Amino acid sequence: MDYTAAPLEKLIEELSKFSGIGRKSATRMAYQVMSMSDEDAESLAGAIQNAHIKLHRCRICQNYTDADVCPICANTKRDPSIICVVEHPRDVQAIERTREYNGMYHVLYGLLNPLDGITAEQLTVKELLARLNGDTVKEVIMAMNPTVEGDATAMYLAKLIKPLGIKATRLAYGLPTGSSLEYADESTLYRALSGRGEL
Amino acid sequence: MDYTAAPLEKLIEELSKFSGIGRKSATRMAYQVMSMSDEDAESLAGAIQNAHIKLHRCRICQNYTDADVCPICANTKRDPSIICVVEHPRDVQAIERTREYNGMYHVLYGLLNPLDGITAEQLTVKELLARLNGDTVKEVIMAMNPTVEGDATAMYLAKLIKPLGIKATRLAYGLPTGSSLEYADESTLYRALSGRGEL
Repeated sequence: MDYTAAPLEKLIEELSKFSGIGRKSATRMAYQVMSMSDEDAESLAGAIQNAHIKLHRCRICQNYTDADVCPICANTKRDPSIICVVEHPRDVQAIERTREYNGMYHVLYGLLNPLDGITAEQLTVKELLARLNGDTVKEVIMAMNPTVEGDATAMYLAKLIKPLGIKATRLAYGLPTGSSLEYADESTLYRALSGRGEL
Repeated sequence: MDYTAAPLEKLIEELSKFSGIGRKSATRMAYQVMSMSDEDAESLAGAIQNAHIKLHRCRICQNYTDADVCPICANTKRDPSIICVVEHPRDVQAIERTREYNGMYHVLYGLLNPLDGITAEQLTVKELLARLNGDTVKEVIMAMNPTVEGDATAMYLAKLIKPLGIKATRLAYGLPTGSSLEYADESTLYRALSGRGEL
């Protein structure tokens, strides 16, 4: 028989749903929640609810934002002729940290993966193609992780984009193959950005 | 300029308050919250609030419970003549997992630590001594972590308990010094329990 009280057990269960958080870490975190003041626990729970209620996808680049259009898309000082396509919003953060990129972004929310049943319809490919109408965009940079799925997605998009007369480039292979873009240091990412080659 | 939307930034900040969760892990977790369904996010936030609202300390052993008295204290099949004193509720879970202990518990919520200003008044020592009135309790087992603070707390409590004619014992030094009770495997903990010696 387990003597953990039901509300505590429920909290441990909820916390262990996070990837990378096992049962033991979740138990530690649950007890930390218990030792918080009522206000701090309320503030944590509120932040979770708020993020869900207030955030939605930017109408243009699909990144999370609490406005109609995110601050990057709304910034008139940025170059609208380049779009950098990334898998995930945290990749936008990673590239912004290099302070070397001044174009726009497009967030795919995944990579093509036929084995897991992820096709172009589940990604924001339609929204990307809609942005390529007109003469504004001159170049689309593929900034997916250098993995099999990332390369396949880049090749797939390049095939759709090149017939439109738009340059399709990808990040240079300065990134160690199989690694995750999110954890690359600033200088590696910068070299990958500046050494990008045409597909 | 950081382009992370404010509600997301707030959530990352709240999550990075957990010890062992750095900014990068908190960011990952925040994006996982974003990719949850509304119901799942609501359920996580609710579990945090619920744990705080519904749980309080057991009137007897001080462990967290949603009832007046916790299931261990309310269980008449357990031996009320032995009390096992632990630092933290998760240590109760650790000892219960050995399935070798059938007595009661008492949770201190800390260890004596004069450098950090933690004295007996901040722990549940008063509540422990109140339980020792009468003839019921014959033995108190000190099950603190085998650290300087744990040993000091055990010695301190033994000095208070022995004049009452009650046996004060402590877990055997089968536990590697400086380690944490929470992470001991079942068999090590069992040997520590059965090899306990009088103080």
